[in-house]
Amino acid sequence: MQLLLSPTSPYARAVRIALMLKGLDSECTTQWVDAASDTPELVHANPMSRVPTLILDDGTALTETALIMQYLDRRVPHPPLLPSASANTEMALAGRALAMLDAALWIMNNRKYLGADANSNVLGERRLNTLKRTLEAFKSDPPRPVSKVIGMGQILLQVAIEYLEFRLPELNATETSGLGDWGKPLRKLEPFHLTEPH
Amino acid sequence: MQLLLSPTSPYARAVRIALMLKGLDSECTTQWVDAASDTPELVHANPMSRVPTLILDDGTALTETALIMQYLDRRVPHPPLLPSASANTEMALAGRALAMLDAALWIMNNRKYLGADANSNVLGERRLNTLKRTLEAFKSDPPRPVSKVIGMGQILLQVAIEYLEFRLPELNATETSGLGDWGKPLRKLEPFHLTEPH
Repeated sequence: MQLLLSPTSPYARAVRIALMLKGLDSECTTQWVDAASDTPELVHANPMSRVPTLILDDGTALTETALIMQYLDRRVPHPPLLPSASANTEMALAGRALAMLDAALWIMNNRKYLGADANSNVLGERRLNTLKRTLEAFKSDPPRPVSKVIGMGQILLQVAIEYLEFRLPELNATETSGLGDWGKPLRKLEPFHLTEPH
Repeated sequence: MQLLLSPTSPYARAVRIALMLKGLDSECTTQWVDAASDTPELVHANPMSRVPTLILDDGTALTETALIMQYLDRRVPHPPLLPSASANTEMALAGRALAMLDAALWIMNNRKYLGADANSNVLGERRLNTLKRTLEAFKSDPPRPVSKVIGMGQILLQVAIEYLEFRLPELNATETSGLGDWGKPLRKLEPFHLTEPH
């Protein structure tokens, strides 16, 4: 397998963590690409030019974090990314974290390519407000504690919190969500360490 | 189950089609909401305020099309949305179609809320170009023909093509992709008929 990814993509980070937790990272080469400048290898595999893109040995190119994680769970069932006792809550958490990442990336892309004021409009403000509201909602309705088996929702939520801390520090993601203690066991794990945003 | 959705969301349309193909639509009430104006029921279930949101009988709120479809496949395995003989190609197709929808929605939201010129910049042009390139790529590398069991990639691709035809007619999605004949068996099915965009 080959994973096409960019150093700044939190989606790519989440997939790397899942690969390591499954013990599949040694079977997977990584190629760093710049999705924004249409690297030929990426465009060839995925004309939508998004990362992460996971190219299987038969050439099939898988994209979209939730689908790649589903593939990894089918390929190597243990440890499961959707533990059977909490599959639905893990999927719910994963969906919420992916929406948080989408909103954060919308804001970041506008800032990067269109300038500091590019989010001073109804869409930018809406995304910032939904992020704030969602972070706050974790205080009254926290996710289940992290245990030995790490679920896809837990991976994605911790990646989203760290991405927000790094890129949108004004949101105070950890404090606003009250998820600092919740995420401690994850931050100690090697797959999270090795992929820290910098 | 309760499905929160908006009439214009192609993601919601794809989930409705999947529910009907699984025979689950009779167990699911639908509530039309306006995601952009923060309907209280939607915000309560999903503070990111995105549709579709599927509320399970225990209150768990599932979001994100790929995850909801995965849930439906776990709940009612037959007919499968990921037929085992073509699971990987269906996932690859689903990922591509979801990225097409994301790009189309980016363009449409900018147009709707920020005006006709809101995509005249590097990000808007990039999304339009990747859409064109991806549509053209189907001509040399068409998806497997539609058979009796409809996969999640096939649902999402047909929904994406019809959404593009409806909202971005300048792309000539059907002609550019050469997928008119490919999609004929899908367009004849009741779940596609009943959910047509208008």
